[in-house]
Amino acid sequence: MTLTPDLLQALLSQRIETPSWGYGNSGTRFKTFAAPGAARTVWEKLDDAAEVQRLTGIAPSVALHIPWDEVDDYAALKRYAAERGLEIGAINPNVFQDDGYKLGSVCSPDEETREQAIAHLLDCVQIMKQTGSRDLSLWFADGTNYAGQDDLRSRKHRMRAALKRVHDALPEGTRMLVEYKLFEPAFYATDLFDWGAAYAHCLAIGTKAQVLVDLGHHAQGVNIEQIVAFLLDEGRLGGFHFNARRYADDDLIVGTSNPFELFCIYAELVSAAASSDDLTRSTAQNVAYMIDQSHNIEPKVEAMLQSVLNCQEAYAKALLIDRDLLREAQVAGDVLGAHRVLTDAFKTDVRPLLMELRAEQALNPDPIKAHRSSSYQARVAQERGTQSGGGGYPVKEKVMSDG
Amino acid sequence: MTLTPDLLQALLSQRIETPSWGYGNSGTRFKTFAAPGAARTVWEKLDDAAEVQRLTGIAPSVALHIPWDEVDDYAALKRYAAERGLEIGAINPNVFQDDGYKLGSVCSPDEETREQAIAHLLDCVQIMKQTGSRDLSLWFADGTNYAGQDDLRSRKHRMRAALKRVHDALPEGTRMLVEYKLFEPAFYATDLFDWGAAYAHCLAIGTKAQVLVDLGHHAQGVNIEQIVAFLLDEGRLGGFHFNARRYADDDLIVGTSNPFELFCIYAELVSAAASSDDLTRSTAQNVAYMIDQSHNIEPKVEAMLQSVLNCQEAYAKALLIDRDLLREAQVAGDVLGAHRVLTDAFKTDVRPLLMELRAEQALNPDPIKAHRSSSYQARVAQERGTQSGGGGYPVKEKVMSDG
Amino acid sequence: MTLTPDLLQALLSQRIETPSWGYGNSGTRFKTFAAPGAARTVWEKLDDAAEVQRLTGIAPSVALHIPWDEVDDYAALKRYAAERGLEIGAINPNVFQDDGYKLGSVCSPDEETREQAIAHLLDCVQIMKQTGSRDLSLWFADGTNYAGQDDLRSRKHRMRAALKRVHDALPEGTRMLVEYKLFEPAFYATDLFDWGAAYAHCLAIGTKAQVLVDLGHHAQGVNIEQIVAFLLDEGRLGGFHFNARRYADDDLIVGTSNPFELFCIYAELVSAAASSDDLTRSTAQNVAYMIDQSHNIEPKVEAMLQSVLNCQEAYAKALLIDRDLLREAQVAGDVLGAHRVLTDAFKTDVRPLLMELRAEQALNPDPIKAHRSSSYQARVAQERGTQSGGGGYPVKEKVMSDG
Amino acid sequence: MTLTPDLLQALLSQRIETPSWGYGNSGTRFKTFAAPGAARTVWEKLDDAAEVQRLTGIAPSVALHIPWDEVDDYAALKRYAAERGLEIGAINPNVFQDDGYKLGSVCSPDEETREQAIAHLLDCVQIMKQTGSRDLSLWFADGTNYAGQDDLRSRKHRMRAALKRVHDALPEGTRMLVEYKLFEPAFYATDLFDWGAAYAHCLAIGTKAQVLVDLGHHAQGVNIEQIVAFLLDEGRLGGFHFNARRYADDDLIVGTSNPFELFCIYAELVSAAASSDDLTRSTAQNVAYMIDQSHNIEPKVEAMLQSVLNCQEAYAKALLIDRDLLREAQVAGDVLGAHRVLTDAFKTDVRPLLMELRAEQALNPDPIKAHRSSSYQARVAQERGTQSGGGGYPVKEKVMSDG
Repeated sequence: MTLTPDLLQALLSQRIETPSWGYGNSGTRFKTFAAPGAARTVWEKLDDAAEVQRLTGIAPSVALHIPWDEVDDYAALKRYAAERGLEIGAINPNVFQDDGYKLGSVCSPDEETREQAIAHLLDCVQIMKQTGSRDLSLWFADGTNYAGQDDLRSRKHRMRAALKRVHDALPEGTRMLVEYKLFEPAFYATDLFDWGAAYAHCLAIGTKAQVLVDLGHHAQGVNIEQIVAFLLDEGRLGGFHFNARRYADDDLIVGTSNPFELFCIYAELVSAAASSDDLTRSTAQNVAYMIDQSHNIEPKVEAMLQSVLNCQEAYAKALLIDRDLLREAQVAGDVLGAHRVLTDAFKTDVRPLLMELRAEQALNPDPIKAHRSSSYQARVAQERGTQSGGGGYPVKEKVMSDG
Repeated sequence: MTLTPDLLQALLSQRIETPSWGYGNSGTRFKTFAAPGAARTVWEKLDDAAEVQRLTGIAPSVALHIPWDEVDDYAALKRYAAERGLEIGAINPNVFQDDGYKLGSVCSPDEETREQAIAHLLDCVQIMKQTGSRDLSLWFADGTNYAGQDDLRSRKHRMRAALKRVHDALPEGTRMLVEYKLFEPAFYATDLFDWGAAYAHCLAIGTKAQVLVDLGHHAQGVNIEQIVAFLLDEGRLGGFHFNARRYADDDLIVGTSNPFELFCIYAELVSAAASSDDLTRSTAQNVAYMIDQSHNIEPKVEAMLQSVLNCQEAYAKALLIDRDLLREAQVAGDVLGAHRVLTDAFKTDVRPLLMELRAEQALNPDPIKAHRSSSYQARVAQERGTQSGGGGYPVKEKVMSDG
Repeated sequence: MTLTPDLLQALLSQRIETPSWGYGNSGTRFKTFAAPGAARTVWEKLDDAAEVQRLTGIAPSVALHIPWDEVDDYAALKRYAAERGLEIGAINPNVFQDDGYKLGSVCSPDEETREQAIAHLLDCVQIMKQTGSRDLSLWFADGTNYAGQDDLRSRKHRMRAALKRVHDALPEGTRMLVEYKLFEPAFYATDLFDWGAAYAHCLAIGTKAQVLVDLGHHAQGVNIEQIVAFLLDEGRLGGFHFNARRYADDDLIVGTSNPFELFCIYAELVSAAASSDDLTRSTAQNVAYMIDQSHNIEPKVEAMLQSVLNCQEAYAKALLIDRDLLREAQVAGDVLGAHRVLTDAFKTDVRPLLMELRAEQALNPDPIKAHRSSSYQARVAQERGTQSGGGGYPVKEKVMSDG
Repeated sequence: MTLTPDLLQALLSQRIETPSWGYGNSGTRFKTFAAPGAARTVWEKLDDAAEVQRLTGIAPSVALHIPWDEVDDYAALKRYAAERGLEIGAINPNVFQDDGYKLGSVCSPDEETREQAIAHLLDCVQIMKQTGSRDLSLWFADGTNYAGQDDLRSRKHRMRAALKRVHDALPEGTRMLVEYKLFEPAFYATDLFDWGAAYAHCLAIGTKAQVLVDLGHHAQGVNIEQIVAFLLDEGRLGGFHFNARRYADDDLIVGTSNPFELFCIYAELVSAAASSDDLTRSTAQNVAYMIDQSHNIEPKVEAMLQSVLNCQEAYAKALLIDRDLLREAQVAGDVLGAHRVLTDAFKTDVRPLLMELRAEQALNPDPIKAHRSSSYQARVAQERGTQSGGGGYPVKEKVMSDG
């Protein structure tokens, strides 16, 4: 296996967007463990993202989360990023952390709450304009915890109306990515509960709306690559939130729990990007590849490096599939022969190939080792310190003296 | 709780269609146990269905499965049914038991196989005309067992094309119900893998295509009543295959594993049937309620009686929900209050009410007891005997002597 | 159905322990919503528990969580409880919120961390003595997030050694309850991953160790009542953490998502408590029934009332099962007949019976309505105010000015 | 990576037992597709197994299923196998296909049925003696479909008593392997429902009883390698039934759906086989590695070849793990470093190494290609023909004329 010009070209054009929040502390409901040197501000997050881009060469954009990354001057933020070789990626509004969102945001039974949420979404459209962002990435925590708590069809109507208003406010050439999730934090019914629900809303709203697939948001056993293929074929796959999980939305480093699944997803994307169907091909070529992870016990920058590299390996393997041989076996009904064409690519060790690629890019052949042997982590640990953890379940409160 | 005229009217109008195959022997892959008196022919199945209708009064139609129920003269079959107070319900084609369907039917990579399958589907449209059936109920076993075995998007195109051809051959006033399933018998990818896939096909094909929800065809944790509400709201819920399960497509008697879920589904249906939205209301009022079970260890007629009665109880409870109180609590954001309005109805023992209803219908107040104390089961056991089981895994073959 | 002396006796002896932490604010990793009047201190939690006991009459003990409920003077705490008609129930150590527990507590690869955890567990044994608590309730967040992260068998040995040391420090007449959990917060391997793991440790450690079943800690599809029956038969069921869920460890109000499951669990407990086998019977009679919920959007006291009442209804229904008829049908192999004996009890509306019971207890017949119409909630809301939420994911941090 | 003497030694000693039933036709409940040349008799199955052994060199034993493989003269069968370089492996009794087993075999409420089942199990012990088999492999379809159908604790007692009687009849040096399964064909409660249940029975019965892990018999999300590690550490892992699945007990070719999981399982086995603990080490060294698959659409011999090769690759990768480096990273709490030591082995392409191994064994370097280019399949297809499918759901019955 050699690095042919086609392979080189394809691998050089791969893009993985890293999320600002992946560089800060995050945790489970039980505890947020503080990591030394975890980024405290959006500026520090951009510094970390620049380090990941410097080492991998395929992570040149950063997703923002508003208001976690809110600043007064987005032009300054954009410049700060550009000086570090970065662009601002997707804008992620937050409509789940205000106290008013207890019963939902855009689906809340309370109209004022809905309007507050929509206003925030529209604010984020303005931030897109100021930062040059192409994608508004929408995740809603909306849902209910008990049967009967709210009317399911009414909530659907509220969701539809909100999405429509935001859609119509989007500038030309931009998109809204509609994310779905099986559960959490809602435990009876989640308003955007699966790809079908997201897809139906997108269809009804307009052409700027596309579905976002988060790898951790499905029921057990669901075939994600098939959803990917279906949405690509319908021209409605907008992007990914990459991560890994075994159970629920575990938000682990992508590719760590089932690398074969990640490969199969990339196999569909590579196939669609070469489709003779214009819609499918252009859809595949515009997919936003974004990481969305919650690093609880991992060093943040190293975790992000690992994530980007795992995507690179999966993509490289997918590029190695012998498509002619595959098609031949499929058409012939050669079940195991076709399967082997696919797995032959998966079994190939692409690490030497990627080292070659990095030589072409004038990068260190082993980004993880380069990071570990650099002074970056030690420096930020010293500069930033270790933030107190917080998060999770209540820690012991000061005991009142009235006992 | 009393049997008000409205309640009486609603309960009298309930309809549950029983499936011909539920009266014959069925089993798992491991074994089909033979039940004494299990129906052997479509005529005997109609006899059994008539017994269920005689005892319950709300099961006046029977779904057929072709070719299991194939006859030379469908007019005769229709008459035979009518003489027993029955109508012919949905027609269920079988495109999974020919040896040629090993790699799929309408999605097979082999064109000849696809044409054979489509021809059978079109034959079934003819049977609809001859029997007066309104619904063509489509379930496909199509799928793949191994990653790479076939091209997922190509298979999607084949499915779309086949559904379109059948759709366009449907007479006015009839429908095709498109069923989906997470898995089994396909174990890597099922071509119609969830409601979203079925819905997307229906939308693209035409207005006669609607989605069929089988309670056993979802991933664990999926909220079925929410899918029901969503499809009702989109005007695309065509019907149900009722059964129960804990794990996969266990095909047990409906309402036996989680009666609260069945109640919640009926709660959405009752709500939608009273909607002020014309599309939602008319969709709800035209839902086909069909049982689809595989009775492995149960007496067949008693199992079907139990199924119909469980649906009747769930529906009666759903009718008892205080809708005004529910809406009031929902609008007020009273989480637990709203939940209790729903569960108050569920906790109500509707059996006395249904006895009253049966008195109105001149039926025995206890259909199960009536059946058990009648001579029906003993008579058919004698007339029909106990068919040899078969099915399932291989039983011991005659040993060859060349050892 | 009437309140016979036997029924009355059984229902009067029911006990449900409420958890101190259920009266305070709790949330998901995304957000902790602040409830007006949520208890801020252990004293306030006891006040709330007393209100629940006052209204239901079957919740006379409270589980503590250390250090959340840590006080200087446990004798004073015990007196405070007693003055309100309460006892101190299970002591729940916390070995998951110190920063040192990032890689586990008693299973950590770091010996010092393990010793710190064990020391805390032993401290809790002292608190048991001071509060008169019978049960040490052990839940460990220990586990790993990535394959290879730590050695599974080594971690098992560390768990065994720690449990043994704590076991041997328990006073006569007390127990340790060993809880298991499928996942969360560990996402690759949880050290006590299922009932079998907990059971094997208990067997090896000694007779004071018993298994604790939390209803939300199982994989989808697992039959919990069968685990209950199995452990009762082996004499190793120590207690429950009651709650409800549809997906993962959703920690909803017990009985709200699948009331039939809760009934089936009580059916096994009632059966075992009448067993002719001494071990099974005494085990069943000493089960600790504890609630463990995380009220995210619910009013805290009302949520706990609802939980206790749901258990009361499930138990009452289980008591109504006609055991002779059930046995008769089971022995005869009458599948559906036996099932109906069970479901007849479930379908019975026991609310009138429980109103009668409350009359016997001189309680308000409708505890929820009594609570809602009392001034309790308004008073504590005023006295305690609404605590700022916190918890969950990071809220926006102060932006640094170095941009 | 080179084929060191240690690696060579380890790889040469690997053993995978193939099942006789994997060479014949099998199917789902919907359909059994007939494969050309599928083995019809136990003699033909041994012929096929010999072909797999000839090509792979690591599959020298065959598991039998009684009565599917029943013969008059087991000494002749053993000779026939020996002449082909094969031994008789595990004996698998069948207590699920007689009509009497409708409500269970050893757990049936009917005593006569239980005795019939136990008699068959004891007959199989005799067959072990006649064939030189070491392992009695016990799988029970026993369970119930409806809550209340039978008494769970009574069934547990019946299981215990039966296992005990069979255990005590086992000759010295032999074992019984107790298999568990989440569900299917029982859909409410399976009597041996998980590893914990099997383990508890084994402990109570005696030292010849060990647990058998079938990869397809777990709930979604369960960590199988952790169960493997736990049982190895307790000295109670007896063997495997290898296969693959995405959903339920799909019985696909092992290693095809999640190759990383298979690797992680082998990683635990390799680790335990080098343990300093005598019990753990000897347990690991005596594990029976057996394939148990149901080839529905695959060519039988090729499917078995693929299965054996997938196990060989997983084992080879597990042997390549740098154990010292792994331990070092684990002890240091280097989460991602430790994970990478593991995944470095997984990412390695071991196919060249295994070709080298086959050269050492004087085997064709590519067994699949060798099989495909040989005349074996064409020859057996001609000799054996294509057996009519059967199985699955009822095919159309002859219509009676009484309509």
